[in-house]
Amino acid sequence: MARWQPNASQRLVAAALDLFAERGYENTTVIDIAQRAGLTKSTFFRHFPDKREVLFGRDTMTGLLANGIAAAPAAAAPLEAVAHALDAVGREAFTPDRRAFTARRRAVIATHPELQEREALKGLALTAAMAGALQRRGVPDLTARVAAELGALAMKIAFERWSDTSNAEDFGELARRTLRDLQEAGASC
Amino acid sequence: MARWQPNASQRLVAAALDLFAERGYENTTVIDIAQRAGLTKSTFFRHFPDKREVLFGRDTMTGLLANGIAAAPAAAAPLEAVAHALDAVGREAFTPDRRAFTARRRAVIATHPELQEREALKGLALTAAMAGALQRRGVPDLTARVAAELGALAMKIAFERWSDTSNAEDFGELARRTLRDLQEAGASC
Repeated sequence: MARWQPNASQRLVAAALDLFAERGYENTTVIDIAQRAGLTKSTFFRHFPDKREVLFGRDTMTGLLANGIAAAPAAAAPLEAVAHALDAVGREAFTPDRRAFTARRRAVIATHPELQEREALKGLALTAAMAGALQRRGVPDLTARVAAELGALAMKIAFERWSDTSNAEDFGELARRTLRDLQEAGASC
Repeated sequence: MARWQPNASQRLVAAALDLFAERGYENTTVIDIAQRAGLTKSTFFRHFPDKREVLFGRDTMTGLLANGIAAAPAAAAPLEAVAHALDAVGREAFTPDRRAFTARRRAVIATHPELQEREALKGLALTAAMAGALQRRGVPDLTARVAAELGALAMKIAFERWSDTSNAEDFGELARRTLRDLQEAGASC
């Protein structure tokens, strides 16, 4: 077998999701996943450190959010910069062709506490990345932290709505509207 | 050895923290912890399902927060009800005599990803408990979620300040002031 495999990473992720759905996360091994993808165990380990990481991949989301905030117009208010970042997530990560995949991934995570824990910690990292990017724009510390929490909550609510496969709306639009709703809700706290 | 052991749970927690600090979390076994506490392994397992849970204990915090919100005056705004709950946390959980313990616990958690993940998931449960308690007071869904996020952030920031052992301020007061600061910061998002 050739060392280089086209789309090996995506094939492994797709195979893993299939197997987790068919026989459960606990009953699936790295070898099972590699075989199903038509790859070897060592190819698996060139892409992921372990079975769990197939579902979490590289930390591209933190980069997308931080860069999106940095790239917002200089005059943008904190939440407008966050909306700018959520647009980028819609363009680069939560694209229509990934909707079915993310819905399946979410269903697998929901059934395993150890996956939920990993997801929870990753959520904190996303929030911290947004707060840091806002602070680098000169936003005061507490304002940056509040804006980042609202951004994370908007992302979570919009993601739940978007990954419901019957919902055809664009992620960026959904997230922007959710962020506005949260800002209004915050004013009546 | 008698089956009933006075303060077994606290003794096990104290012994675990000592051992984690001395030799590291990975290098400490349940038997080590029980021995250090002068108890048996089976006593350990009557109190905790595994080594990790020594640091997390029973979920008293979610109950404290939910009951604190439920007990706030009927006319209290959402964030005032949250402040009421944070006062209860200061009276019942983050009391002055527990400051040193919680600072040590925090230091152990900070050094282990698997403990950080557990803590992260627990944080989500606390936020959800606050949002649910607010909804049961008739607060609209999004307002309740925003107020709960602000409450969780206030709790986290106030906890960091409070568990710094050089800080002699009362947790409830610190949390209440932090919550006010966050509310102001939110208005300039």
